[in-house]
Parts: sequence; structure tokens; C-alpha cells
Amino acid sequence: MGKLIVKKFGGTSVADAERIEAVADNIESEINAGNKVTVVLSAMGDSTDDLIKLAKEINPEPDLREYDALVSTGEQISVALLAIALLKRGIKGKSYTAYQLGIKTNSSHSRARILDVEVSKIISELNEGVVPVITGFQGMNESGDITTLGRGGSDTTGVALAAALDADECQIYTDVEGIFTTDPRVYGKARLLKQVSFEEMLELSSSGAKVLQLRAVEYASKFNLPIRVLSSFNEGEGTLVQEEKNIMERPIVSGISSIDTEAKLTIRGVPDIPGVAAKILSPISDAGIEVDVIVQNIGADNTTDFTFTVNEDDTKQAEEILKKTSTTLGGGLIDVDDDIAKISIVGRGMRAHAGVASKMFQALAKSEINISMITTSEIKISVVIKKSEMTKAVAALHDAFDLDKELDE
Amino acid sequence: MGKLIVKKFGGTSVADAERIEAVADNIESEINAGNKVTVVLSAMGDSTDDLIKLAKEINPEPDLREYDALVSTGEQISVALLAIALLKRGIKGKSYTAYQLGIKTNSSHSRARILDVEVSKIISELNEGVVPVITGFQGMNESGDITTLGRGGSDTTGVALAAALDADECQIYTDVEGIFTTDPRVYGKARLLKQVSFEEMLELSSSGAKVLQLRAVEYASKFNLPIRVLSSFNEGEGTLVQEEKNIMERPIVSGISSIDTEAKLTIRGVPDIPGVAAKILSPISDAGIEVDVIVQNIGADNTTDFTFTVNEDDTKQAEEILKKTSTTLGGGLIDVDDDIAKISIVGRGMRAHAGVASKMFQALAKSEINISMITTSEIKISVVIKKSEMTKAVAALHDAFDLDKELDE
Repeated sequence: MGKLIVKKFGGTSVADAERIEAVADNIESEINAGNKVTVVLSAMGDSTDDLIKLAKEINPEPDLREYDALVSTGEQISVALLAIALLKRGIKGKSYTAYQLGIKTNSSHSRARILDVEVSKIISELNEGVVPVITGFQGMNESGDITTLGRGGSDTTGVALAAALDADECQIYTDVEGIFTTDPRVYGKARLLKQVSFEEMLELSSSGAKVLQLRAVEYASKFNLPIRVLSSFNEGEGTLVQEEKNIMERPIVSGISSIDTEAKLTIRGVPDIPGVAAKILSPISDAGIEVDVIVQNIGADNTTDFTFTVNEDDTKQAEEILKKTSTTLGGGLIDVDDDIAKISIVGRGMRAHAGVASKMFQALAKSEINISMITTSEIKISVVIKKSEMTKAVAALHDAFDLDKELDE
Repeated sequence: MGKLIVKKFGGTSVADAERIEAVADNIESEINAGNKVTVVLSAMGDSTDDLIKLAKEINPEPDLREYDALVSTGEQISVALLAIALLKRGIKGKSYTAYQLGIKTNSSHSRARILDVEVSKIISELNEGVVPVITGFQGMNESGDITTLGRGGSDTTGVALAAALDADECQIYTDVEGIFTTDPRVYGKARLLKQVSFEEMLELSSSGAKVLQLRAVEYASKFNLPIRVLSSFNEGEGTLVQEEKNIMERPIVSGISSIDTEAKLTIRGVPDIPGVAAKILSPISDAGIEVDVIVQNIGADNTTDFTFTVNEDDTKQAEEILKKTSTTLGGGLIDVDDDIAKISIVGRGMRAHAGVASKMFQALAKSEINISMITTSEIKISVVIKKSEMTKAVAALHDAFDLDKELDE
């Protein structure tokens, strides 16, 4: 029996007529192999950016209901064009907007969350030999307004549809060949991973490896749905992201993520009493600023230093908020440092192996890299270092944990 | 009490951010004057052509369901952008696709006809001070597929909405100032008409004055809804197209239309028996070719010459069909002539005035213009002449009927 596969193609994969034809060829091969296919598409290339630019010419902060109505046209264009390309091949392609299918979301325009996917229409189309081609990234709210899921939301649409359809696999086609041990642009010896667990993928995603959208991985994990990340430009098996228990042999460390677009803020000498952390972070999150790493150390004389990192674009705003908080709390000086990089080693294997952290710190010490912050989770150790030392640190850790050598995965 | 006005803006009126701001200004003035406004928009400038080009790169004859899904995005973009511009001005603009409102059409993709306009949503929005901004040119069929009304269909959407809302006026904004006595590019003395009847407008539309879409005029006439044709680039009252009985004084001839993109086909010596005309024209219309003028003259020896005009692009195809018909009917030679122009004088006034036709023929004779075909209707007389004499003929007739002189309309 054939499989049911949901294929999601990103913007670069449908950037022009030629790329759309290539996607149609891909689907044709899958159909010829006896499988059923449902397709989810992003907008063509930079077309969404062009629409946003147009809106911002009129108002730099456009109304979000209208913003969503505007940018949702991008995917409507790509799905219609792919359906045309499929029909040319004698395949019964049929485009659908999320609106037509009734993909329900909440009302948070421009960053809505999927609430419900009604698949009866898709199933009846599949049973009639149709290849439904569906707009990613969007939905409709209770009032019948068009919503969008935010950047990368097409991954979430793909996974949500695959889960609702109980598909055998969700294939996410991108412009990279899969998930690597580290960013190949940072370290040339980066190796393509054959498989990785949802948990590791989540840690890798949130640490800068932006191949898959975080929400999509969470969704897939929740429904135990295997995701395969592949390139739409090259042949290859890509990386299978799946439940831990299906992964037999495992290396201690699966991958290294690096990010150098954050800034570190420290508020010194705040009173070391309950509730201080919340008092510092609440105004930051109320302003819509996302905080990444948080570290607090108990100091002398009942005061503490509290440090966290934010996206470098939010530095100025976070600093202003922090100054006010410091005044209220009777805190001391505020340090801001945007000359930083965060390196994380991620791996389910490290649970069972002692000494991973010390091996990491030794490798960095040997390369004379100073560590200014450390945080750990069960399957991840992150350090903050100077930005200029990021590449050197990734290389040192990649070598130390033998990531260039393939294990019998 | 304020009026309820439906304003429809064409593609050139929303071609870029600057033009969209101008449209928003126009609506702001109307709101400030105490009126309620519903807006219908076409797609920006040539954006629809760009989409069609993209589809044709993949398939020169794209599937029409997908074609409609594709091109309908054009209006969705313009309505969202206008809503953003209105909201910037503190006006509660809100974009709606025809799909969201449930504008029902039949299933003739790319040339669908509106069946039903549900306006309860629009009315409740208007009552809350909202300016609904609605995609023209499109709708949905019974199966929930997106349909489009064909070129110029936004006029029809505007008029249909205005009729369903029982609006006081439907204003159609274009890139011309209104309806002229003749095409100003053909004859410089052309004068803007303050008013014209539906019937005259229909005759003028179908004779080449393509300011308003024919279907929109028919629709307005059926519902006795006044249409005002205005320029979105210049101030001015434009032309009011309305019921005959509201037009007090009237000139004998209201306007002259001219068209030089048709070809004339004649089949000679066909038997003069009942049903011949149908046998000649049915295969032509079955092939989707539109026929304009039809003239048949009884000849000698129980045969007749049958002549009709088609768009010059269809000449070759019509000729092929005609050759086959001639063989079947036992007809004679086929003449094809694309070196023609059709000139029509249109006016409700000519009903009550004898001698309009002879005055027309005299004027043409005085300019030594030979007439090769004549057809008449109650309010129109058309002649077919040589293409090279079109401009001269328009000038002669414009002068003969004193169209440059304003009557106390």
C-alpha cells in the first residue's frame, strides 16, 4: 500500500516558474511511486517581503488584520501556480486556501496559532485522486477574518495537516540538505545528520539553527509525527526528525548551535529576595521582548547580579526598561554587552555520559576562549563567549566531540 | 441625512502607494461630508497582467479554476492596502474579499456572472461606522471555489453591491473624466457629457467607448441605479448615467463612437431560405467568437449576401469556419476585409427627429467618405467605412451634429 505524505515547500523552493515545475516533478515521482500526496506551500521567494514593503510605504505600523489579509495573498499565488503545473502533467492538482478549508486559528493577527484543522474535504479529495495544494502560513479566526501564523508558519501548517491527516511522514523541503552537526557556514566540517530527536531539534532550533520552525517541531513532537527535512535543490535523504525511542545508536553530542545576534544585559546589586526575578523580567516580556538565556548568581551582602540575553535589536528598549526597574528595586549599575556569541552543544546522549560539560570547558580552555556565562539543561549546555571567538569555539567543540565522524546511526 | 455611496476605483486609480493615499483622501472627504461609503477596488495597475504572465510561463492555457484563484489575489492586495491607508486617517476601513462576503456567482471560471450578493454583513459594518473595502471582479461558486468575472468585472461588482445596498449612487472612478461625445484621442473637440441615459451608454459601450463595462451598465439599468463616471486624477462632476426619464433636455445625438479593430466577413450567394442566418452564425458563436454588426441583403436569383463583423483577432478562425459552412450550404465566395472602421451616432433624441440618418449620410458624403455597410437601431446608426477615414468621419459627424456645443443639459 502507498503512503500518505505531506510535502511542504518553502519560499526558495517555489521562487519562480522553473522552481515550481521542479516541485511538480517531485510530486509526480511520489505519485508514480504509488503514494498519496498533500502539498503545503510558502509564498514565492521574497514576495511576502515585497508586500510588507508596500504596506509600510503607507503605514510603517499597518493594522494587523489588514496586514494578514495582504500577506496571505503570497501563498494563494504559489498554490494556484503549482496546481497549474500539476494539471499540465495530468495530475489532478487543486489549490486551496486555508480559508477555503477552514483552518481555524485564534485571533492573534500576524502570529496566530492553529486551533483546529478540518480535513474531511482534503480526505475526500485524496480519495478521488486529487493532490490538494494548500496555502501554508495562514488560517481564519472565529469572525471569518484572515490570519497568518508568523514567519515560518508554513512549517506549522504542514505539520498540523500531517497530524490531522494521520500522514506517514511530513517532508519539509528547504534550501539546505537537512540538519547539520553545526552551521556549515560557520564550520566546514559540519556533517549532515541522518536522524535527530524532537527534543534535540527543539534545542537546536531555539539555539539558532533556524531550519525548522520551533512551533512546528513542538507540534510534531506532540503528535509523534516524523518530519523529514530535505533540500528541494539536491537529491538526498535529508534528516529524519522523530521520537527518541526510534533512534537506536546515539552519539553523546548530536550537534552544536551558534548564534551571534544577541546582547547580554546585567543588573547588578539587586536585593536577593523572593520575587526579584519576576519583577525584572515581567516588564521586559510585557514589552514583547523575548528573553533567551537567564543566569542569576548569589553575590555577597544579600544582593545578586541578574543577567539575561535578548535579540540585539531589542537591546536599547530592554536597557531603558531595566533602568526603570533598577530605580524601583534599589538596584545598582546596568551592564550591556552586544559583543557576544552563544554556543550550545546538544545531545540526548549526554544524559548518560558524565563529564560532557568538563570536556566542553576543557576544549574551550585549550583554545584560550573565555566563558562569560554558562547555562545547562538536561540535553544542552550553552556558553556565552566573545563574538569574535564564535567560529573558533564551534570548530574546537566539533573536533572535541568527533562530530565529523559518522556513527552507525 | 447623508447618502450611501458605493465608490469603485479602477486599476490605474490604485496603481501605487501614492495613488492609494489619494483614494483614501477622496473617501475621507466623503465621510466628512456626512455620507456613508462602501468601496470596491480593482487590482493595482498591471498586477493582474503580471500574474497571468506567470501562469502562462507554466502553461499557456492554464486551468481556469486555478487561474481564478491566482488572479483574485490582485484585488485582495489593493483592498488591504486601502484599509491600511484609511485606518491611518482614523477611518474604520476594513477589507473584505468577495469570498468572505459570499458574493455568489455561477461556475463559469474567468467569466462568471454574479448570482447573489449577501449584504447583511456590509450593512451591519456600515451601521458601526465602518468603511467596507471590497474586492471587485470576483466571487465564489456553489462549490466554494474562487471565481472571477472577467475583465472590467469590478464595475459589475460595484453596481451589483450598490443595487443590493440600495445605494444612492454608484461612482465609478477611472483614468478619464467621464463619458465624452466621442473619443478625445480621435477628435480633439470631444466634449464631456454631463449626463447620458443607460440605453445610450449601452450603445456607446458596445460601440467602442470602453469606459464602463457593458454588463455593469445593464445591471444598473435593470435596478435603475444612477452611475457616475469620474476621474480619480482630476476634480470634476464626471458623467451621470441614469434613467432616460430623469434627463430633461436632450440633444438629438449624444455621442459618436468609433472602432477600428474589427474585420468584415461576407459569404456570397447563399440560398435565400429560412434558417440560413442561423446556419452561418451558429458555428461562429459555438467557437466563442463574438459577432458585432450583421447585415443581410436579398440578392437576385434567390441567393443572398451575408456580412458580419468580428474582432480582427478572430478573423482567421472565423474565415476557416465560414469556408466549411459555405461548402455545406452550397454558398459562394468568401470576402474578408480588415481595413474597416465602424462609426456610430447614438442618441435617444433621434427617435423624435426625422432625417437624422440622412443628415449623417450627407455629412459623410460631403467629406467624400464611402459607406460600405449600414445598420440601425432605435437610438443608433452605424456605418462601416475604410479604416483610414475613421478620424475624418468622426470629425465630420461631430461637427454636423454640433456636439462641441453644450446644450442646457
